[in-house]
Amino acid sequence: MISFESDYIAGAHEKVLQKLIETNLEPLSGYGSDKYTKSACEKIKAACACEEAEVYLLTGGTQTNALIISTMLADYEGVIAADTSHVGCHEAGAIEYTGHKVLPLPNHQGKLDAGEVEQYLKTFYADGNHEHMVFPGMVYISHPTEYGTLYSKEELMELAKVCSAYKIPLYMDGARLGYGLMSPETNVTLPDIARLVDVFYIGGTKVGALCGEAAVFTKNNVPRHFMTLVKQHGALLAKGRLLGVQFDTLFTDDLYFKISQHAINMAQRLKAILQEADCTFYLESPTNQQFVVMENEQLKEFGKEVAYSFWEKFDESHTVIRLATSWSTKEEDLESLRKILEKI
Amino acid sequence: MISFESDYIAGAHEKVLQKLIETNLEPLSGYGSDKYTKSACEKIKAACACEEAEVYLLTGGTQTNALIISTMLADYEGVIAADTSHVGCHEAGAIEYTGHKVLPLPNHQGKLDAGEVEQYLKTFYADGNHEHMVFPGMVYISHPTEYGTLYSKEELMELAKVCSAYKIPLYMDGARLGYGLMSPETNVTLPDIARLVDVFYIGGTKVGALCGEAAVFTKNNVPRHFMTLVKQHGALLAKGRLLGVQFDTLFTDDLYFKISQHAINMAQRLKAILQEADCTFYLESPTNQQFVVMENEQLKEFGKEVAYSFWEKFDESHTVIRLATSWSTKEEDLESLRKILEKI
Amino acid sequence: MISFESDYIAGAHEKVLQKLIETNLEPLSGYGSDKYTKSACEKIKAACACEEAEVYLLTGGTQTNALIISTMLADYEGVIAADTSHVGCHEAGAIEYTGHKVLPLPNHQGKLDAGEVEQYLKTFYADGNHEHMVFPGMVYISHPTEYGTLYSKEELMELAKVCSAYKIPLYMDGARLGYGLMSPETNVTLPDIARLVDVFYIGGTKVGALCGEAAVFTKNNVPRHFMTLVKQHGALLAKGRLLGVQFDTLFTDDLYFKISQHAINMAQRLKAILQEADCTFYLESPTNQQFVVMENEQLKEFGKEVAYSFWEKFDESHTVIRLATSWSTKEEDLESLRKILEKI
Amino acid sequence: MISFESDYIAGAHEKVLQKLIETNLEPLSGYGSDKYTKSACEKIKAACACEEAEVYLLTGGTQTNALIISTMLADYEGVIAADTSHVGCHEAGAIEYTGHKVLPLPNHQGKLDAGEVEQYLKTFYADGNHEHMVFPGMVYISHPTEYGTLYSKEELMELAKVCSAYKIPLYMDGARLGYGLMSPETNVTLPDIARLVDVFYIGGTKVGALCGEAAVFTKNNVPRHFMTLVKQHGALLAKGRLLGVQFDTLFTDDLYFKISQHAINMAQRLKAILQEADCTFYLESPTNQQFVVMENEQLKEFGKEVAYSFWEKFDESHTVIRLATSWSTKEEDLESLRKILEKI
Repeated sequence: MISFESDYIAGAHEKVLQKLIETNLEPLSGYGSDKYTKSACEKIKAACACEEAEVYLLTGGTQTNALIISTMLADYEGVIAADTSHVGCHEAGAIEYTGHKVLPLPNHQGKLDAGEVEQYLKTFYADGNHEHMVFPGMVYISHPTEYGTLYSKEELMELAKVCSAYKIPLYMDGARLGYGLMSPETNVTLPDIARLVDVFYIGGTKVGALCGEAAVFTKNNVPRHFMTLVKQHGALLAKGRLLGVQFDTLFTDDLYFKISQHAINMAQRLKAILQEADCTFYLESPTNQQFVVMENEQLKEFGKEVAYSFWEKFDESHTVIRLATSWSTKEEDLESLRKILEKI
Repeated sequence: MISFESDYIAGAHEKVLQKLIETNLEPLSGYGSDKYTKSACEKIKAACACEEAEVYLLTGGTQTNALIISTMLADYEGVIAADTSHVGCHEAGAIEYTGHKVLPLPNHQGKLDAGEVEQYLKTFYADGNHEHMVFPGMVYISHPTEYGTLYSKEELMELAKVCSAYKIPLYMDGARLGYGLMSPETNVTLPDIARLVDVFYIGGTKVGALCGEAAVFTKNNVPRHFMTLVKQHGALLAKGRLLGVQFDTLFTDDLYFKISQHAINMAQRLKAILQEADCTFYLESPTNQQFVVMENEQLKEFGKEVAYSFWEKFDESHTVIRLATSWSTKEEDLESLRKILEKI
Repeated sequence: MISFESDYIAGAHEKVLQKLIETNLEPLSGYGSDKYTKSACEKIKAACACEEAEVYLLTGGTQTNALIISTMLADYEGVIAADTSHVGCHEAGAIEYTGHKVLPLPNHQGKLDAGEVEQYLKTFYADGNHEHMVFPGMVYISHPTEYGTLYSKEELMELAKVCSAYKIPLYMDGARLGYGLMSPETNVTLPDIARLVDVFYIGGTKVGALCGEAAVFTKNNVPRHFMTLVKQHGALLAKGRLLGVQFDTLFTDDLYFKISQHAINMAQRLKAILQEADCTFYLESPTNQQFVVMENEQLKEFGKEVAYSFWEKFDESHTVIRLATSWSTKEEDLESLRKILEKI
Repeated sequence: MISFESDYIAGAHEKVLQKLIETNLEPLSGYGSDKYTKSACEKIKAACACEEAEVYLLTGGTQTNALIISTMLADYEGVIAADTSHVGCHEAGAIEYTGHKVLPLPNHQGKLDAGEVEQYLKTFYADGNHEHMVFPGMVYISHPTEYGTLYSKEELMELAKVCSAYKIPLYMDGARLGYGLMSPETNVTLPDIARLVDVFYIGGTKVGALCGEAAVFTKNNVPRHFMTLVKQHGALLAKGRLLGVQFDTLFTDDLYFKISQHAINMAQRLKAILQEADCTFYLESPTNQQFVVMENEQLKEFGKEVAYSFWEKFDESHTVIRLATSWSTKEEDLESLRKILEKI
C-alpha cells in the first residue's frame, strides 16, 4: 500500500527531527521564551525581508486562523472569504465559535476575485441599512488555495489595493505556503507576500514539521497582549521549544524551500504519470495537490493499493479524489503508482 | 407627509394601551411571574390549540432568534436558512455572536425549498469528512418571509417531514405572523403552525404591541432553565407585565387576528392603488409588505411626500422600495398616496 | 395585601404613561432615530452638564451591563467588581457569556474600596506572570449598591483617580441612580458622576419607566459602531420611541428627580416605622431599599399581609428580608404596614 | 547554571523520542485515526482498569480544561473551583472565553473541601432566587494541586459523593498526575481515580512528553461529536501521531509511572537538601514541586546560579519561590544545588 492521501502522512523532516534530538535535554524556559524560538522568529523575518515583522509560533492551522481572525476583527466585523475557503467550510465553525461571521464570496478555482471583493465592499457602504449588517473587516485568502491554485503577484497587488482602500487587513492562510512558493508557475516570493499582505502564516505541519505554523504580522499590527490571547485560546505550548526548534531548523540553510521544491518536483512527476494514464484532471493545479476524476468501479480497485483523499462526488458514477505529494514523497512510490495505473 | 415606511411606525393598538393604563398601578411581581403573563401564555396556547405548548414572552425579534437558535443548537451545530434570511443578513451577526454558523441555502422569493434542504442534509451525511464541518442542527424559516411571501401548508408539511427525518427542529420566525395568517392567499392556520413546526414566535412588535414577541415551544422541547438563559442574554424584563399585559390583550377576543386583518385589507387597497398607478412590482407579495421598482427621479419626488423604505438598488436608474401597511394604517393615508401617485 | 417587594412592582409614572398615550399614533422612524429619543438624549446630557456625553437608550440592566462591559473591554480583559456585585452574582453569568471574567474584590457593605482596587492593580502589574492572567480592564461599581449604600464624592474621586492612573474606565451601574441622588445623605450630584466616571447608566425601570436604562458615555469613549453592537446583542428595539418618549418625559421638568425624592421620603418614613417596631436592621441604608432581620415565625405571619423580598438566611431562626419603596409607594400602604408590625 | 525552574524545562523522555524517530516515516492517516493513537488509548484504558473509558489526546492543559469544561457544561452552568485553581487564575480567562463562569470556593493548600462544596450546592438550591445565578454544573480539582498537595482517597470519595448527589461531574486536572500517583504519601491509584471522577486528564507535557494530555471520560459521558468540538476549538492536530506515539510509549512497560517515580525520588532528595540548608518551607508538598520562602538578598545570589520560579511576594523582604523536579532531573544538579545553598 502506498499513500498519497495527504501532505501530512509522515512525521518530521530528518533534519528537524535531528535538531529535536540534539537539543532535547537542554534546560529551556517555557512558553516560547527559549532561544530557539527567538532564533526561528529572526530567521523567518530575514526570509521575509521584513524588518518590522513580528512572528508567533502556533500549533495548527485552524487554531492559527481562529486566533488571527478573532483578534484582528472588531466585534461588529466578519471576514470575507471564498465560498470554498477552509475557514468557511472545514474548520467546524471555529471562526463562528469566536463570534464572527465568515462572509462568503464566489470562488474562482478556490480564489477570490479582487473586483468582486471591491464591489462587495462598495455595495456594503452604499447601502444605508448596513448598521444592521456584519461589517466586512478582513479579507481571507489561502495560497495555495484548497484546490492547489495560486494567486499571481498582480492578483495579490489588486487585493492588497482594495483592502488598503477600505482599511481592512488582507490575511493569507499559508498552510501549504512552501509548495506555492516553489511552484514553477508562480511569480510570488516570500518577501512579496510580506510586503503585500498584512498578516499571514507559514505552514509547518504540511511542510516538514511534526506540527507548527508561523504567524507573521507585517505591519506593526500584532494585536495587543497577543501572548495572553494565545493562552486564552488554549494555544500556548508550555514547551514552546517544540515549535522553536522545528522552525529554526526549517529556516536554516533554506531547508523549508528545498524540501518544498522536492514536493513540487514530485508533484510534476505525479502529473505526468496521471496524464500518461489518461486521467481526467478536475482542475489544473500548479502545486502539490492534484485532483482527478475517477470512475467509481476503477476507484474501488485503485483504493486497494493506493491511499487517496475523497474530495467530492462528481456524478452518479464518478468521484473527485485528491492525490498529494509532500517533502516526504519517495520516487519509488510514484513509480509504484505508475504501475498500478497501468494495470487498472 | 404620510408614512408607509414600515409596520412599526406607530405605538400600540389602543386596546393594548388601554389595558396598560388600567393595570398600571397594580402591584405585580417581576420577571414574568405576574398573572397577566400567565394569562397571556394560556390564551396563546389556546389559540394554537396546542396543550403542551410552552410560551415565553421576549422583547424583540433578533433577541428571540438568537435565544431560540443558540439554546436549541448543540455547540457543533449551525442553522440552515435562506440566503436572504433576517438571521443571516440583517441581525448584525447576532447568531454568530452566540457561536453558531448560519448555513445559507438559495432562496426562492425569500423561501427555502424542502427538496433542497433535504439534498443538503443528505449530502452532508454522505460526505465522509463531515466531522470537520458545521452540523446542520435546525432549519430557520420566516413566515411571512422578508419579501412578504408565504409558505403553503403543503410546503410546511414537506419541510417538517425533512426536519423530522433528520431529527432537527423546524423554527419559524413569525415577526409578522398575523399578517401571514390573515392573508387571503394562505391555507395555513395558527394550529397548523403549532402542529408542524417545533418552535416559532408570534410577533407583537409589528402587530399591535409597543414591543414583544411570544416564543412558542410546541413539542415539550423548551431548553432546560430557559428563564436563566433569557437572563443570561440580557433579555429578561424586570417588569414582565409590560409584555404580559400586551399579549393578554392581543389574544383576547381575537384582537391579534382582527388587527392583522385590517392590515391585510389595507395592503390589498395599497396593491390596487399601485397597480392603478402602473407601478412595477418587484415580486408578488400576499401580505402587508409591497415591493415596487421606482425610477430614481420619480422616487425623489415621491419621497418628498411619502416615507418609504429603501430596499435595494435595482439598476443604475431604478430602486426597489418597500411600502408597508399595518394594524395602524389609515384609509385616508392610502387615499393621499393614491393622489400623490397620480401626480408624479 | 400590600407590597414592598421591590421597586419595580408598578407600571410607569402617570406622566410617562400620559406621554406614551399622546404620541402613540404619531408615525415615527424606528431603531432610536425618532425625535423623542433625540430629545431625551439631549435632556440627559443637559442634566449631566456634560456637553460631550453620548447617550444610548437600552431596555434593562443586565443587558446594559453586558453591552457596556463587553464592548469596552479588550478580549484579554476582565472587570473588577465587588464580590456582592449584581454582575458577579445575579445576572446568570451574562458577563461571562460575552467572554469576560468578573474579577471579585471584597465588598464593604456592597462598596469597593479604592485602596484595595489600587493594591490589586499594583500587585497585578508587579507580578511577572501576569501574561497568563486576566487583565483588569475596567472597574464596575453600583450606586446605590445592591445593599442600598452610597459612595461619597470623595470615594468616587479616589476610585476615579486609581482608574485614571491605570488607564481603565470606571463604570457605574445606576439601576437605582435617582434614589441615590435624592438621598439626604449623599453629596454626589449627577454632574459629579458625569465628570468622575467614564460611563454609567441612569436606571429607568426602577424609577418611573415601564422599562429602559440610559447609558451615558462621558469621555468621547463610546465604542465604534455601538448601534451595530446593540443590534448584535439583540438589544435594539424596533420601536425605539418606547424608550425615547419615556426618558424624554422623565427628564422634563425634573420629573426623574422629583419622583426619586418621593421614594426617598417614603423610605425615611419606612425606616421610622421599622425602628418604632424595634426591627433589627441588617445594615444602615440611606436609600430606598431597607434590609431587616426577622425571626422566621414572625416572618411567616408578616408574609401573609405584606409582600417582601427574601434576601438571605441570617441564621437557623432568622432571615434577612428587603423592603423597598419607589416612586409609586403610597403613604396609606406605609400606614398599613405600621399597623401590621404593631400586631405581630 | 542549573535549573529547577519548572517540570517542563526538558524535551521528551529518550524512549518517547526514540519511538518518534522509529515511526517517523511511516505513512499514517491524520487527525488521530492512526494506529498509535488507538494503541495509546487502549493502553491508557487498561492502566485505568476502566473498560468503558473513552480517551482523547490533546495538546496542552489549558486547551484540555477549556474543552472539557465548556463541552460538559450547559450554557447556564459554571464550574466550581478553588480560588487558587489554574482555571480560575492562570489561564488568561480561557474558561470565561467559552462563556462559562468559574465559581471560586476557598482553597485549603490548593484543595477544595467536600463539606464546603456540599454547603455551596445546598445553599444554592435553597435560595429561591437562583434562577438569576450561574448554576454550579461541575467541580474542578487539580491533583496534585497548584501547590503540589494531594487529595486522599477518602477526600476524593467525599467529593465524588457530593457531586453524585447533585448530579454534576467531578473533573480532575492531572497536569502532574504521575507525580501525584508516585508520591509516597498518596493512597490513590489510577484505577481509583478512574472510578471516582467522571472525567480527568493524564498530563504528558510535564511528565515525559514534548506535549500532550490524555483526556479520559470514564462514565460513558463523552460529549457528542467530541472530535468536531476539538476541531472547533482549534485543538485537533493534523498529525495526531505526534500525540499517539508519545502516549503509546509512555504507557508501555509502565514508563509513565517509572519516570514519575524518578521525579519523586529527586523531590525527596531536594527536600532533604533544603531542610539541611535550613530553608523555610512555604507549605508541606508531597510531590515534585517544593515551595520555599527566601530572603530577597539571598535570593538574588541564589538566582545567579539556579533557575527557579517566582511564586509570590511573601513580605517586604521575602519571596516565595518554587523549585521543581521532573523525570529529567539529574542527581548531579541536586548535588550542585546543595553546594550552592551551603555557600549562601
